[in-house]
Amino acid sequence: MNKFAYSFLIATFVAIPFASKAQTIIDTHPAGNPRARLLTVEEIAGAKSSAMYPSSTRLFWDANGELTKTIKRAPAPDYTLPVSDKEGIVYGQTVSRNEFGGNRWVIPSPDGSRLAVYRKDESGVSQYPIYDIRSRTGEARMIRYPMAGMTSEKLSLCICNKSGKILSELKITDYDDERYITNPTWSPDGKYIFVQVVDRVQHRMRLNMYRTDNGDFVRTILSERNNSWIEPLDPLYFVKDSYEFIYRTDNRDGFRSLYLCDTLGKVKRLTECSADVAYVANDGKYVYYTSAEVSPIENHLFRLKIHDSFGRLKPQRLTPETGWHQINMSADCSKFIDRYSSLNVPGVTQVRSSEGKLIEHIASATDPLDVYAQCQVEIGTVKSADAVTDNYYRLFYPRNYDPSKKYPLIVYVYGGPHSQLVTNSWLGNVRMWEMLMAQKGYFVYVQDNRGTQNRGAAFEKAINRECGKAESEDQMAGIESLLERFPCIDRNRIGVHGWSYGGFMTLTLACDHPGFFKVAVAGGPVIDWKWYEVMYGERYMDNPDTNPEGFESTSLIAKASNLTGRVLICQGVEDDTVVWQHSLSFVQAAIEAGKALDYFPYPLDKHNMTGKARLHLYEKITDYFETYL
Amino acid sequence: MNKFAYSFLIATFVAIPFASKAQTIIDTHPAGNPRARLLTVEEIAGAKSSAMYPSSTRLFWDANGELTKTIKRAPAPDYTLPVSDKEGIVYGQTVSRNEFGGNRWVIPSPDGSRLAVYRKDESGVSQYPIYDIRSRTGEARMIRYPMAGMTSEKLSLCICNKSGKILSELKITDYDDERYITNPTWSPDGKYIFVQVVDRVQHRMRLNMYRTDNGDFVRTILSERNNSWIEPLDPLYFVKDSYEFIYRTDNRDGFRSLYLCDTLGKVKRLTECSADVAYVANDGKYVYYTSAEVSPIENHLFRLKIHDSFGRLKPQRLTPETGWHQINMSADCSKFIDRYSSLNVPGVTQVRSSEGKLIEHIASATDPLDVYAQCQVEIGTVKSADAVTDNYYRLFYPRNYDPSKKYPLIVYVYGGPHSQLVTNSWLGNVRMWEMLMAQKGYFVYVQDNRGTQNRGAAFEKAINRECGKAESEDQMAGIESLLERFPCIDRNRIGVHGWSYGGFMTLTLACDHPGFFKVAVAGGPVIDWKWYEVMYGERYMDNPDTNPEGFESTSLIAKASNLTGRVLICQGVEDDTVVWQHSLSFVQAAIEAGKALDYFPYPLDKHNMTGKARLHLYEKITDYFETYL
Repeated sequence: MNKFAYSFLIATFVAIPFASKAQTIIDTHPAGNPRARLLTVEEIAGAKSSAMYPSSTRLFWDANGELTKTIKRAPAPDYTLPVSDKEGIVYGQTVSRNEFGGNRWVIPSPDGSRLAVYRKDESGVSQYPIYDIRSRTGEARMIRYPMAGMTSEKLSLCICNKSGKILSELKITDYDDERYITNPTWSPDGKYIFVQVVDRVQHRMRLNMYRTDNGDFVRTILSERNNSWIEPLDPLYFVKDSYEFIYRTDNRDGFRSLYLCDTLGKVKRLTECSADVAYVANDGKYVYYTSAEVSPIENHLFRLKIHDSFGRLKPQRLTPETGWHQINMSADCSKFIDRYSSLNVPGVTQVRSSEGKLIEHIASATDPLDVYAQCQVEIGTVKSADAVTDNYYRLFYPRNYDPSKKYPLIVYVYGGPHSQLVTNSWLGNVRMWEMLMAQKGYFVYVQDNRGTQNRGAAFEKAINRECGKAESEDQMAGIESLLERFPCIDRNRIGVHGWSYGGFMTLTLACDHPGFFKVAVAGGPVIDWKWYEVMYGERYMDNPDTNPEGFESTSLIAKASNLTGRVLICQGVEDDTVVWQHSLSFVQAAIEAGKALDYFPYPLDKHNMTGKARLHLYEKITDYFETYL
Repeated sequence: MNKFAYSFLIATFVAIPFASKAQTIIDTHPAGNPRARLLTVEEIAGAKSSAMYPSSTRLFWDANGELTKTIKRAPAPDYTLPVSDKEGIVYGQTVSRNEFGGNRWVIPSPDGSRLAVYRKDESGVSQYPIYDIRSRTGEARMIRYPMAGMTSEKLSLCICNKSGKILSELKITDYDDERYITNPTWSPDGKYIFVQVVDRVQHRMRLNMYRTDNGDFVRTILSERNNSWIEPLDPLYFVKDSYEFIYRTDNRDGFRSLYLCDTLGKVKRLTECSADVAYVANDGKYVYYTSAEVSPIENHLFRLKIHDSFGRLKPQRLTPETGWHQINMSADCSKFIDRYSSLNVPGVTQVRSSEGKLIEHIASATDPLDVYAQCQVEIGTVKSADAVTDNYYRLFYPRNYDPSKKYPLIVYVYGGPHSQLVTNSWLGNVRMWEMLMAQKGYFVYVQDNRGTQNRGAAFEKAINRECGKAESEDQMAGIESLLERFPCIDRNRIGVHGWSYGGFMTLTLACDHPGFFKVAVAGGPVIDWKWYEVMYGERYMDNPDTNPEGFESTSLIAKASNLTGRVLICQGVEDDTVVWQHSLSFVQAAIEAGKALDYFPYPLDKHNMTGKARLHLYEKITDYFETYL
């Protein structure tokens, strides 16, 4: 699961498509009223910002299958977890730092009488000091943080009763003892449990079946192998009233596809589109899934007959409107809430039947930015640097755009795995800061490069063992194409900004292209993958012993001597995702190389800033670009 | 002892004195050749900078009383210290964080056969985490750092043989058990040891005599009491071949004076000038001392007959030349090395007899700044804010000064106890950065405010319980007087910069006078005295329980909401003098108050930057003023 921050996104508008030599424009929205008021940093960063986001009514299904506006809090657990008296061993807490779909470390049996509980032994994991200024005398809070190639946590999965008594422990023996035990799934009858066991280096996976009464291994149902990586993200989805299940992987046909399997090893492809799909639900007859098959920047709901003995049926699209649809299916799969937006549609909430018929139109949001001066926005594509893929971008034009004038350009970048910044949703999924900067007279450009999600396995895995390389090649190709198309962009006034993986990208771009970027602002950046954690880091980079050249070529420490222009790094002092070691080490490298650098620490924040720190951060970033770009 | 950094100082030049309504000018030097080359940051901060400092030959006395150019390293200790197996208890290491004259924790007896060794029990002292990025997984190095009002270290003094065997321990029972045991002095015959015992709150002192064979208390010879503070800085200086000793205190006559005492309690004043003096040596007949009696900005050597049965003799001045003299007396007090400089004399080294006769002129440094464009410099005085004292300042004029133009002003400030920035030495003791900034077109102003040294006890103790108040009032009075005299200084372009106590002063000035300073740069600043250590901090501020209003009124945390203009804070990450708690807490306060602030951490530096970090720091500070002032 992606813990990185590429949060706070939004959208664009539609108009007459037009094309240039360099790119295909999907949609363009002309600038709005130039006399209307401008955004403020407080509005885009602070509490008020929500007022600028389209808010169609948010709906949920209650326990009776009725629509409701309130989501119930999960009740307090009615069980007790086992407790270890050995330091470093815990039950039922975060494992694998939330990777592999994450968030499920206590999994109740179908009848609720038993629990599958993770046991995590991290006593061998090195500890990292998190600086905490809250107490008068200061404190170093030690966290277990396994770094690439170093000793990691050791997992097992126990079957417990609700009083915390361990009834059995799965006898998992595959691979090494720092294996990942991912996505536990109970069989519908509770007799078996299935786990997708991944080796430490994340190149192999076995889907294994175990007895829950004594933990005995029953059989390996299927296995996967990939020289880049294997990353199971889903549990098994059992077909209603059946022992068949739906399984999702990107390792068989180049895209995240759904397969119909049984526990004896049958694997039959269900979705056949050349696009990534995501499972939503099944009712025994149909499987419901969302998919990028209409367009990588649109998300639509489909259904497909699970058993089609008379030849494959075409999947049925259930969301007719252009745009990005978020789906919430009712428990009985009879209807679904469809919340969508698109470039020029701020937000619609409606209910459709599972055949796709409109049952009720709930709300259409009005344009929350109506009072603001809007800038021209477009979504387009540009060829990836390897000329294989059309990468999507969104582009904000400066306010009162006049091609005869000169303009500076800001590139906002994330670019890491599991991200997709450009979608055909409200304002193209824009971060409101982009519109603020466009109002201040900047072009703002955002592109989803190779390595990001929803474009299939080859696209995603292009970054393997050399994070930052393909990604920044694509970004540079996009910028060059933009400069070619817009002679009015001043080549001497190009800035770049990003957070987390985007901070890493920002500094990689700045260091690899000295003189190109006049201003760079990196937040919570990865500086060297050797300081990043095992689970996410080794998937993409292997480890410093098995991929020394990759770690060396992507490390920013030696590249600090390439710094030019003005560079600002911001980081939360309590960051326990990208630990402080990264940016402080880069600061030291810049000092030793005699390179100018600016820095700002957020003492009480972790990997992302919230509240007043967030406002302060955006004031700082905005001021920095205005001062130096 | 002052651990704060007001280091890297230098000088000025002489010319026709002139006066204004507001101040008396002591000496002025007109600007030099405007076509000569300018200083660079690298020159003033880096290795090359020493080439710009006057270097007359440095000389020392060797063991035979002959002049030599090399100073011998102290031989490796020929003794073993006791070792405690209890964590937190150590022998013969730094005590009282080097306050009270500092630096002497193992004191050999006159015949060298025994040692007086401090035992320090700091097991009750809270630990502070110093962040260390050197190892791959990071580290929090815990240091014992007692904060004002909190549990402090407990000291005792042991008499040991050279094998580390404890022969006796002084039976010190005065005051509380966190008393200070300062300035141990062996009697010439080794039978007794004298210590100046100070209570934890530093208001009382007893000069006690103990037997060295069994540690028994013999008697209290004299005692001092002061409602501000008592700070013994000197051991006893036994008169040659006698049981009389010379004792220095500022608690009897308003200045640091010398007294002739005996062990039965006789106290007879020796130096009678209204100026602070420092003991140098005695030969049984004369005591040699340096004194500020000619002028507070000059340091001269005097001698005085110790026993003057026929009425007091006038002290004899041994250094005729105007300026600041550094004295190195030969062991037999027959002659001394005199190294001096003054505003327009870069540096002279000579040898004089103890009667003051010139024996040998060794060297006169040439002006090392001859090739540089020089700026007009003056030393003058301005009334302290309470109108009692003439405070000294030095002022650099901008290069090519033209009173019809407008100029920005930078105030450089330290202002803390034990400091004196303005002296009649080479270029007025200027920090070369001042000349750099003057060359760039700034006025640069430096003033020694109340609280600094060499002006007597009342001046020094004016800051008691409210550090920063009198000091900044004096600074503001100086600036206002300057603005009155120079209408060409732009009131809207005033900057301030200081380090350590000067960082505290910088932020105090900026926060107490919103809108006055356009740019402030504070290094390693104290932010709230509650985070500062016991020994230095409680002397000036008492503690948060006994002086809550003083701690509150001087704390910069609440004042962060007053910030205006641009403020930059720099600090060494490994600072173990002013711990990181200070500046990070101020950062948080500024964030919460929604105030702009800039910051830069030096990851591998402590309280002061050295080497490449120092160069980087000066590039940053200079750039900051150039960008924003």
